[in-house]
Amino acid sequence: MYNMKEWKHVFKLDPNKEISEGQLEQVCESGTDAVIVGGTDNVTLEDVLQLLSRIRRFTVPCVLEISNLDAITPGFDFYFIPMVFNSKDKKWMLDVQHQAIKEFGNIINWNELFVEGYCIMNQQAKAFQHTDCYLPEKEDVIAYAQMAENMLHTPIFYLEYSGVYGDPTLAEQVKRNLSNTLLFYGGGIRSAKQAQEMGKHADVIVVGDVLYDDFKNGLTTVEAVKGKK
Amino acid sequence: MYNMKEWKHVFKLDPNKEISEGQLEQVCESGTDAVIVGGTDNVTLEDVLQLLSRIRRFTVPCVLEISNLDAITPGFDFYFIPMVFNSKDKKWMLDVQHQAIKEFGNIINWNELFVEGYCIMNQQAKAFQHTDCYLPEKEDVIAYAQMAENMLHTPIFYLEYSGVYGDPTLAEQVKRNLSNTLLFYGGGIRSAKQAQEMGKHADVIVVGDVLYDDFKNGLTTVEAVKGKK
Repeated sequence: MYNMKEWKHVFKLDPNKEISEGQLEQVCESGTDAVIVGGTDNVTLEDVLQLLSRIRRFTVPCVLEISNLDAITPGFDFYFIPMVFNSKDKKWMLDVQHQAIKEFGNIINWNELFVEGYCIMNQQAKAFQHTDCYLPEKEDVIAYAQMAENMLHTPIFYLEYSGVYGDPTLAEQVKRNLSNTLLFYGGGIRSAKQAQEMGKHADVIVVGDVLYDDFKNGLTTVEAVKGKK
Repeated sequence: MYNMKEWKHVFKLDPNKEISEGQLEQVCESGTDAVIVGGTDNVTLEDVLQLLSRIRRFTVPCVLEISNLDAITPGFDFYFIPMVFNSKDKKWMLDVQHQAIKEFGNIINWNELFVEGYCIMNQQAKAFQHTDCYLPEKEDVIAYAQMAENMLHTPIFYLEYSGVYGDPTLAEQVKRNLSNTLLFYGGGIRSAKQAQEMGKHADVIVVGDVLYDDFKNGLTTVEAVKGKK
């Protein structure tokens, strides 16, 4: 499943959190379309490399979502670069990315690199505070989506509720403004029912936290959007 | 000449500056590929409309470079939206554009809209100060160009020296990093010789100020890069 346009479901694993061998195997063999490695806190190269080597024993596509210049390594299938549209600081929109390109621009395989236009919707989330966001209104979010699709041509627009379950009607409205840009939804999906609900609107749902405290329900989200393996 | 990929030369006219009927005719009939209407200071809707109607008597493609939300009007062939990559303030990279999309997103014809990734290189320029820029080093500019080409897919990367003649070797290095994104060069071109020199590297040279104080030499820049009409 290397064609992202066909993805419906991905798991996101935090290199800073523990997951057993048995659970990792179930995640990778679940039928999910990809596993994203990414986190906000204390992402170290050591932890990223270890998780990479453990995931690499399986055939599932493996993505590094870059949050930290010190934790970048070759070996992933894709690299996702977040640009935070609703940050108040240009740093998180263009400047950290610019530093990365300045450092690595000449060795990057641009075909493996995908920009995510992020819109972070949860004021309590660490990512929201860390990247100095403001809480956008519905019209703001839709305008960001239109910019992602029509002006910046980012392959992904990422509606991120980070820890809480979001508003499916907003996801639906955003999706109506996207055709080439894929809508990723992340945040608070803890059950098959929620996966189905958001999966109706988002092209791809991202399931993460639930794996660390309610593993069994987390696994059911795959079948909920992709049908039986 | 509606295919921008074939452009080599454009004139930029400031709606806030005077140009006679005779001179305007010579500009529009010069063989230039397009006339851009744009300025930094006191751009009013009234002045934009007046210049538009005067240019519209000729067949040359006519572009509005948007610097001011209050001075937008239908009637142009293309709309250029600057995003200032080397501004220190997200406002000039994404936020004023976001406001415009929020207001006009549902009536925009996206096919007429072209993003310009701007890099402003002259600390004395009003545009530099107005958009709170820092002066980038060579490596910064090249990384911005790589982002324009590979990450943001802007149709235009605009190296702007605004009033002073810039560094042709930098233009050459930038151009080497662009293939789909067009390199526009603007600033200080006051003679056929300079037009030729920058035209060797930039896809499109933008000639403006010289029209207002050395009209005859300004006109020679067309033939210098496009050959005899």
